[in-house]
Parts: sequence; structure tokens; C-alpha cells
Amino acid sequence: MKRLSENTTDLLKEIKAEAAELPQKKRRDFLLNGLKLSVGSALAATVGTAMAGKESLPPNVPVWSRKLGRGVVSVPYGHPSKHESDVVRRTVDWLTADSISSISMTPLHEMKGIITPSGLVFERYHAGVPEVNPDDHRIIINGMVDRPLILTMDQLMSFPSESVINFLECPANGGMEWRGTQMEALQFTHGMLSCCEWTGVKLSTLLDEVGIQKGAKWLLAEGADGAGMSRSIPLEKALDDTLVVYAQNGEMLRPEQGYPVRLFNPGWEGNTSIKWLRRLEIGDKPWYQREETSKYTDLMPDGTARKFSFVQETNSVITSPCPEKPMMHRGIHHLEGIAWSGRGKIKRVDVSLDGGVSWQTAKLKGLVLSKAITRFGMEINWQGEPLLLQSRAIDETGYVQPTLSQLREARGSNSIYHKNSIHTWMLDKDGTVSNVQLG
Amino acid sequence: MKRLSENTTDLLKEIKAEAAELPQKKRRDFLLNGLKLSVGSALAATVGTAMAGKESLPPNVPVWSRKLGRGVVSVPYGHPSKHESDVVRRTVDWLTADSISSISMTPLHEMKGIITPSGLVFERYHAGVPEVNPDDHRIIINGMVDRPLILTMDQLMSFPSESVINFLECPANGGMEWRGTQMEALQFTHGMLSCCEWTGVKLSTLLDEVGIQKGAKWLLAEGADGAGMSRSIPLEKALDDTLVVYAQNGEMLRPEQGYPVRLFNPGWEGNTSIKWLRRLEIGDKPWYQREETSKYTDLMPDGTARKFSFVQETNSVITSPCPEKPMMHRGIHHLEGIAWSGRGKIKRVDVSLDGGVSWQTAKLKGLVLSKAITRFGMEINWQGEPLLLQSRAIDETGYVQPTLSQLREARGSNSIYHKNSIHTWMLDKDGTVSNVQLG
Repeated sequence: MKRLSENTTDLLKEIKAEAAELPQKKRRDFLLNGLKLSVGSALAATVGTAMAGKESLPPNVPVWSRKLGRGVVSVPYGHPSKHESDVVRRTVDWLTADSISSISMTPLHEMKGIITPSGLVFERYHAGVPEVNPDDHRIIINGMVDRPLILTMDQLMSFPSESVINFLECPANGGMEWRGTQMEALQFTHGMLSCCEWTGVKLSTLLDEVGIQKGAKWLLAEGADGAGMSRSIPLEKALDDTLVVYAQNGEMLRPEQGYPVRLFNPGWEGNTSIKWLRRLEIGDKPWYQREETSKYTDLMPDGTARKFSFVQETNSVITSPCPEKPMMHRGIHHLEGIAWSGRGKIKRVDVSLDGGVSWQTAKLKGLVLSKAITRFGMEINWQGEPLLLQSRAIDETGYVQPTLSQLREARGSNSIYHKNSIHTWMLDKDGTVSNVQLG
Repeated sequence: MKRLSENTTDLLKEIKAEAAELPQKKRRDFLLNGLKLSVGSALAATVGTAMAGKESLPPNVPVWSRKLGRGVVSVPYGHPSKHESDVVRRTVDWLTADSISSISMTPLHEMKGIITPSGLVFERYHAGVPEVNPDDHRIIINGMVDRPLILTMDQLMSFPSESVINFLECPANGGMEWRGTQMEALQFTHGMLSCCEWTGVKLSTLLDEVGIQKGAKWLLAEGADGAGMSRSIPLEKALDDTLVVYAQNGEMLRPEQGYPVRLFNPGWEGNTSIKWLRRLEIGDKPWYQREETSKYTDLMPDGTARKFSFVQETNSVITSPCPEKPMMHRGIHHLEGIAWSGRGKIKRVDVSLDGGVSWQTAKLKGLVLSKAITRFGMEINWQGEPLLLQSRAIDETGYVQPTLSQLREARGSNSIYHKNSIHTWMLDKDGTVSNVQLG
């Protein structure tokens, strides 16, 4: 048994001695061509650096191992390391006229697993983030109901809670790409997408309390923000899986996510999930509000409008490599990406390295949940050749993510919303990745 | 179809008119005795408040609906509402001599669902939180291996990623209760518990890279903090589900959780999941470090020591009501709680209202994942009688959470660690909840 040694010199001697005794075993490509992790090179690098005077570089004892850190009372609510200050939501400044009715996007290239931390969930609002006082906030349910209701937050939160892990996506995600704009960052091509655990009350429970009248078919959800953002929602959805949500990732909603309460329609256009929810009205027809006629409706090639296109269809994108995460070396890489479907679980994801000519099935990783981000991965051996990287998701209903030309054939190029076509990254021989529009 | 009305008077008139037309339908106990949500009372309360001069209280148009909020560029990384400033980690100031080697606890009474937001994950460390520079950090694997290895963070993160949702618990959780100290807050009785999505590399993948030598049975994990916190871990666990973790809830680890890298042993004592991981040594015997002999080992009644007690056994607690969440009214309540087991999935949770004389089976809610927090709920009708509330969890291996007397019979009362006995809240007739130690 080896003794624990805190001393650099001893440790280096120990590792060197062990290395000397090693048979000249053939190392995997991953190590040899890729990360240069072999004993020799790692040692050389370390010794080299140490010689250059960086005494504190491990395996030496670094400065943070030689002193005390901060204590528990100093940070009652924690935040990321200062070394992660670049991992933030970002906006495209030419995209909207004003930051008050705008969008910030999730840094998907930095995200791991399936949960998006609340601080990085994308934002979209139409009159800024209101500061709602939860004590004074009320939720009103009126219209075609037997017993109209006004609820305080305490009352709402006394109903049985439900929690789900679901994605939330703005239907305009990727909208800039419809007519050919090529955003050179994953954060801007797909960053109006996040996935959280949402907790609230089933809307069907509340509707059961008020008693829906015969003939009722639609519901109007209205926000308490300055825009009074409102959308018409079919009662069928409201009675299925819609939640009145007050918490996100274990704690109360963030202000920009609708604090203290929002609607949440799993798998549907983000903007139907009305934030700062103030009122639910039951009716027999849709209301045709501004945000479902002038906006969130697409003009088809034949001049008609495609409206109430609620479901966020099956989609996927490769997150590593991507423009923000170029290939740094040749050899074995673990390509990774995310897939999601508003209609259920992801069943399969295929990956193409040649722009859709041939496909391989990727591995689905971790939890595969309905209407949630699902992560996929595949090992590739890259020897510096240019590649056209694509992913194609298939959900449990059998829906196959379309190509861009298939989507344009069906919907033309006047659309803004629901661009879920197969996305192409071009990997250049120098490892850089760019956004190209391919068939 | 009703028109959308933004005007208070109109809306109130509308609701009043509808209420007048209602048959005198018998309302559920929930509404009548409980929340007073009936049209009459809600209206009366609203009108009453409006009369008192609070013009902005909904259904009037409140102040936040009448102006613009903040724009997207102002908060690149979000944080909770100012109205949630009481939802923080807390310490018990007499518990440790110094805040540098101390504990802060998760506000479990405010948590929803199963994910603990990273900012509220409990803290436990022995020399404060070091500020590790990820660019200069290295992970060394040495000892009984064929190919010792030094990894940079970039190199570590190039291996295939794995994500799991698992709880993390300090084995001293509830430790103050062994000898009869009764902490009057859920945050202090059980708050050294959190549950996150963790992303990293399987330790077995790294051990495969270095090649474990014949005869190796244990692994020493060593932290880069000033305490050089280290624990011996059987290779069997290391080769099973141990992860070398760099991310938590979708983003890089928080500093207090081991940024940039920690070990994570699912279901095991939190302190084996060494933070700021700097070194892994492979050996044939445990190292008997300070933190596994002087600490994290319990003195049994017969004078022997119970050591290497790794697994966090099945446990549960009622989170609503609790001392911080008293009963505010008589009638129907949705009792809620959490259960967890270091050995797998929660199979069943029973609830007793009479201190363990009779039991009812609660409903498991949402995702039931192995080695994760599982939420349970049960409807109770409380008419003001004093109750002794208990929960008893059973995991998929058939392990039943023991009573306090069963636990003391087996382990005496000199222990600090692994107190997983059935917990009792006494509900008084005035709705207050206190911590009592019962059989």
C-alpha cells in the first residue's frame, strides 16, 4: 500500500518510477492522438510547467490547498464561481427594438444533463419583468363557470401539488433561420429552450372547483404584466396536463419566469404558458387576442395564416461540437446533443457526419422523460476531414424531424415560428464549427 | 362568450351576478371549512379590502400591471424574487466552533418537487470553501495502477458524460437528536439533505484508463481544500456507480459543492463524495484517515466503533405541516413529505396521525427515482385535535425505516451519524407544530 504523499517531488518520483516499470502498452487513440494523457506527456507537461516556475500547479500543493476558504454564514444563497462569469443568458441586440419586449437565450453549449438552472432559463416577455407582490396577487377564474373564484397564493398552494420535468421553448426558437439568417452560435440558433422541474396545481383541479358550464370549449389565460399578455387555450389541453405553476427547480418561480404564478402547458408554445397569471376565463370560442393573431401565427405560401399551432414538434441539435465549442484536437470525440418533443418521449436520435447522406443511431443518455430535453451522445473519430454534422430526432409517436427543404415545402419561408428542421453544423478542417443551411 | 374586462367594477359586477344565479350547491369541506374560497367570502374579502382603500388589490388593476418592468439585458444570470429573501440556507450557531468548519442547511420546508436549487444545497466543509482555479486544477490518479494519470479539467470533460438525479445527505443529518436535543425547525432536523442532477464521468471509465492492478481493493479520494479532506472507498463502489462530477443542475458545480470537480457516491454518506477532488489513489487497504476514524465513525454501546457505515439508510419526514409551516385552519389539508433511500427507490410511505398506533399509505408523487428524494402526500381532515404526525418509508429492498427506540436499541445514544428513525411532529390544537421524541 502506498502512503499518502503531499510532497510534489515524492509524488512525481513515485509516478515516474511506476511509469518506468510499465510495459510499452499500446494506448487507445483517445489518449495518444487526442488528449495526450499518457504518463510521459502528462508528466512532461507538469514537470515542464513546474520548471517554468509555476510552483503551485498541481501535483504541487496549490495556493488554495494552503489556506482557509470562506465560511458558511457568508453565502446564505449561493451563486456560480467567478470563473463561470461567461456562462450567462445573452441577447441579439438587433432582434428586437427594445429590451423591454425582448428575448434572452440560454447558453445551451455550456449546459449539462437535462435541467437548466433557473438563473439561465431563457427570457421572453412583452412589457418587461413586473415586480408582483405575492401577498397582493390574486388569480381570478370567471366566465362559463358555476362558481367564479378568486384565489390568494396561499389558497392556491394549499391544493395538492404536482411536479413534472418538462422543457419550455419559445415557438420563435430558430425563427431567424427561416429566411436564411445564419446565427453563428448555438445559443442564438436554439437558445430559446430550457428544461426545468415545475411544481404547481393541476388546472383540472381548479376547474373542478369552479364547475365548467355546458358548451364551454376554450380558456383565456391573462397575465398581470403591463402587456396583459393573453392566449386562448382549448379546454381539452387545460383538462389534460396544464399546470398552474408556482415553483421551478425546487423553489418559487424566478421573477422573469412569472413569479409568483404562471400557467404551464407541457410541450406547447412557451407563450401559451402565461406568466404572472392573473385571470382564467372560460368560454366557448377562442378570443383571438393580439398575441395569437398578429403574432404567434404564421403566414403560409398560399396567403392563409397557420394559427393555434400549439405543439412544439420534435427537434434536436448537436451541442458539442458547435460554434462555441470547436474541436480542439484530432482523434476520438464524444459528440453530444439534445432532443425534445412536445408530443412525448424521444425514441431515437440519428446522427449524420455527411450532411444526411448516411446516418448512425446515437445513444440516449440519462433520463428519457416525456416532453423533456433528452441528451444523446456518440463517439466519433475525427482525423481533420471537413464534416457536415446533423442530428435527426424521432419521438414515441413516430414523428420524424424534417429536413429544412421538407419544412419549407410545407410552410414556405414567411414563417417565424416552429422551425424544427434538421440543423447542420459544418466542421472545418481546423476544428471550427459554423452554421450552414443544408437541404 | 364573455368579453375580457379590465375594469374592476365590471368584473366584480359580473362575478356577483353569476353568484346570484347559482343554486345553493353544497360546497366541499375543503372550501367551506378550509380555505373560505366560496364566491361570497372571496368577494366579501376583496370588496372589503377594496373599501378599506387598497385600490390596487386584484381584481382591480394592480400597480405592476400598469407599468413596464425590467428588460432582458439587466439580469444575465437570474436570482430569486426579493419577496423570497427568507428562503436561505441557515446555520445553528452553537453547532460548530467556527464557520470555517461548519454546516449550513437547506430550507426543506420551502422546497417543492425533488430538485434542490443549487443556491440552497446544504454546505458542509472542514476548512472553508476554497477558490480553485479550474485552469490550474489537476486530478491525479496514482497508486496500484498500471498507468498513473494527471488530468486537466478539459481532459476530464472530454470523457463521455453521465447525468443522474440523486440526493446528497450529510450522515450527521439529525445527529443532534440522538441524545435528545430537539431542534424546533425542519431545516435543522433534516436540512443536511439536498437532491440535484449531477453530471460527470463514471469513475469506472477513468479506472479503466489507468488499469487497476491485481490485489487493489480500496481507493483514497483526496480534496484540494485546506483540510485535504480524504476518505477511503471500496473499489466495488467505485466501479459501480461512483461519478467524478463537474456539474450540478445543468451548470458547473457551485464553489461550495466542490467546483470545479468532486467525487459523487450515490446514496452514500455525503462526506465520501470528496469535494475539490485533487487525487485518487488505488490501494489494497483502507487508509484510516482522520475523517473516517475520529469522525464519521460511531461509538456503539459496547465500546466498539461502527466504521465505514457508508449507506444512507431509508428515511422520511413530513415537510408540511412542520414547525415552520403550522396549520392555518381546520378542515382538509394536503399533508406532504419527502422520503429517500441510499439503497434504491422508495417503494411505499405510511403516515400515522396518532404517533404510530395506526398507519395509512400515502401517495407517492411525481418521479420516483433510485437514490433520489421522493415526494409523498395524503389528504387529512383536521378538526383541531392534537395529532402526533409520523411518516415511515419502505424502500425497494424491503428495508423499513425504524422507530427511534429500535434505532437506540441497536446503536445506543453515543452516535452522531446515521439517525434515520421515524420522526414525530406534534400538532397542537392551535395549529403549531413541535418536534417531539417518541418511541
